[in-house]
Amino acid sequence: MARSVGIPKGTRDFLPITMRQRAYVMRIIRDVYEAHGFDPIETPAIENIETLTGKYGEEGDQLLFKILKRGAKAATGECDLGLRYDLTVPLSRFVAMHQNEIPRLFKRYQLQSVYRADRPGHGRFREFMQCDIDIVGASAPVAEVGLLAAIFDVFVALKFDSVTLQLNDRRILRALIQVAGIDLELETTAIMAIDKLDKIGEEGVEKELENRGIPKTAAENLLKSLKSAENNEAELQRLETLFAGYEDALEALAELRRILTALEVCRGRHKIDLCPALARGLNYYTGAIFELRAEGLNSSIAGGGRYDKLIGSFAARDIPAVGISLGFERICVIMQEQGLFPDFSASADVMVACFNEESLAQQVSVAKKIRELGLSCELYPQNDKLGKQFKYANERAVSYVAIMGDEELSTQSVTIKNMHNGEQTTISIDALATFFQ
Amino acid sequence: MARSVGIPKGTRDFLPITMRQRAYVMRIIRDVYEAHGFDPIETPAIENIETLTGKYGEEGDQLLFKILKRGAKAATGECDLGLRYDLTVPLSRFVAMHQNEIPRLFKRYQLQSVYRADRPGHGRFREFMQCDIDIVGASAPVAEVGLLAAIFDVFVALKFDSVTLQLNDRRILRALIQVAGIDLELETTAIMAIDKLDKIGEEGVEKELENRGIPKTAAENLLKSLKSAENNEAELQRLETLFAGYEDALEALAELRRILTALEVCRGRHKIDLCPALARGLNYYTGAIFELRAEGLNSSIAGGGRYDKLIGSFAARDIPAVGISLGFERICVIMQEQGLFPDFSASADVMVACFNEESLAQQVSVAKKIRELGLSCELYPQNDKLGKQFKYANERAVSYVAIMGDEELSTQSVTIKNMHNGEQTTISIDALATFFQ
Repeated sequence: MARSVGIPKGTRDFLPITMRQRAYVMRIIRDVYEAHGFDPIETPAIENIETLTGKYGEEGDQLLFKILKRGAKAATGECDLGLRYDLTVPLSRFVAMHQNEIPRLFKRYQLQSVYRADRPGHGRFREFMQCDIDIVGASAPVAEVGLLAAIFDVFVALKFDSVTLQLNDRRILRALIQVAGIDLELETTAIMAIDKLDKIGEEGVEKELENRGIPKTAAENLLKSLKSAENNEAELQRLETLFAGYEDALEALAELRRILTALEVCRGRHKIDLCPALARGLNYYTGAIFELRAEGLNSSIAGGGRYDKLIGSFAARDIPAVGISLGFERICVIMQEQGLFPDFSASADVMVACFNEESLAQQVSVAKKIRELGLSCELYPQNDKLGKQFKYANERAVSYVAIMGDEELSTQSVTIKNMHNGEQTTISIDALATFFQ
Repeated sequence: MARSVGIPKGTRDFLPITMRQRAYVMRIIRDVYEAHGFDPIETPAIENIETLTGKYGEEGDQLLFKILKRGAKAATGECDLGLRYDLTVPLSRFVAMHQNEIPRLFKRYQLQSVYRADRPGHGRFREFMQCDIDIVGASAPVAEVGLLAAIFDVFVALKFDSVTLQLNDRRILRALIQVAGIDLELETTAIMAIDKLDKIGEEGVEKELENRGIPKTAAENLLKSLKSAENNEAELQRLETLFAGYEDALEALAELRRILTALEVCRGRHKIDLCPALARGLNYYTGAIFELRAEGLNSSIAGGGRYDKLIGSFAARDIPAVGISLGFERICVIMQEQGLFPDFSASADVMVACFNEESLAQQVSVAKKIRELGLSCELYPQNDKLGKQFKYANERAVSYVAIMGDEELSTQSVTIKNMHNGEQTTISIDALATFFQ
């Protein structure tokens, strides 16, 4: 090849069938979000660099794609813009900027790509789609219920066998840390360690906790207290007993109880697990946190939580908010593996063959007539031998080919070849509507 | 405000109503493209920097957004990636990379944002949507006709009063330059000058031509020869006479004649103008070029042409191609000005009021039942006074509010308020389907 034709590491081109599969998933997600009364917004792919930095923790800052200043300033290597890293920080900036243009309670959905200079890996990309819903301005737990009811409906609509919603609350984690005898100054660092439980196991987390300056006994206590009871009711009771005197944590439990009760109605065959070990890495959560897992997949397919302070970092006042982000790419992987996609291999219904360039107007006219019947119809884009044109039609799984040779042209007729059974029928152009009915 | 909450110059947030308008236009464009047998693809927003540089001319190179290398190399200020500047160069790179996965004749559409560090101005943005169709692998003029037939259908579907398609061919421009007595080495520079005719007028172009080293007499000749005859047939004849002996130009004229004839069938009330002064700035065009103009708008709403050599700069061999790009942002401006958008102010059909958190499960259940009737239904996301909830429903143009107070709960019923006429009806929950029919 004349030049290098690669694409950036961790990015992808999408070919037509993949595009149709992705559009199918997006349409279902969008339809469910709309049915639940969420409104669409979009924000730019590029944000001012100061909007992004300091929001995602130290690791997140390193994964930002930064854009060089233009013009003479390029020589300094200075960056003033960055690519969108998630949809939550842009939403927070959006709410602060448009406070007077949006309802006091703002339910929005947003389906856009985000960019992270992460090490690409199995199902991990540098450009990937997120499908978020958030409710801004409302406090727990009604908003949490509205949000999660919509998410359950998404997986029902996508025909997923069974997903499990894991529920926790940052206030519960804090109380667990306190009960274990750990200084609250070490809360964030302890949460970051707990967040690794899935990856490095109990022993790993215990070491990690000790490395982060937490005494061995406290670390052991904490790990023991993360083990949940057999069912949600037993777990609620265990934690209520454990948290006697911890008002915030008891309030969190009362909210979780309401969320659990209300979601019973809409969880269908999906499961809900109260899960005190669920931590979620991001700094900005303040209340309920949640993740969704699909059977057989090691990582989560959705995650979110309440962040009552983040918008306040852009606006003059705190505005409560809760949101959840669907892992679109992983959902597509599961749909593919489980055969949940319809067949998208067929392209146009009909192809009009190109017989000669002199009769192009007639071919265009017949194609137009066929389209007016509600069928998709493409014009073969070049003057080729008919055999080549049939081959192309077959490759594209076109159902019918319309041919207009000299004879057809002289009699205002068209020969239609059924590509499934090979049958050919010559009909008057006026009879197209009858034929395709 | 606590921090700066701006967005980058020339970028925009889209609020829900604007989003719905944009989605409406995109859906129509996508539907027409699909009806004409074009297949969707997408490419990453970021490309390797060497894919982008040198493709758009000197000015284009300066308008690229460049992304800093990550990690330790950031300190050097080096850039390895850039943001997508158009959809034609990524398509060319895509075709070279995926030659064995796509049909020999490849008709693709692509709706994605592009990024240009241009001076933002009236209707000019740094992030904006393009809606391209291209036919790869096919030579003129059948492909041109297939392409432009789809474009006319887009404007019919969008209910545009009248658009004008301006047609020309780079081979015609070259012959005009030769006939005027200008050295062919100055072809590119002459075309760049002609491209400014709309902006700086004849006198301006004449000066520009002279500044670019073209003798005054030749410049005058050229400008005179750009004036087209009254109608397309007269213009074809004028040019045929002028180009005696210029084989390439005569071939171009023969192709244009076929394109004009075939498009007569599908132009509807729209106009087609053979326009020898149409130049189009980009370097890569080799044959037919075209632009669409809407009445009353000074700038074009679509533009494209044939580029038979661009893909060859990525692949080992030349692959002919022709494409056109719709100016989505300008189309939206015109639709807004001419009132072509449906009313998108209504959000959900029904809102379920939040009466108390204890009965949340019942509210969720009723909302679910209403959604199962095919209506959109949102849960008011917070425990508020009923007056506040009605106010919110009014602001969001919700048609019905469902209320479940203690009495309704005890009788398994629900009170529905019609927000248009204020009427309230209490019905059994089982009667919801009948009510909403």
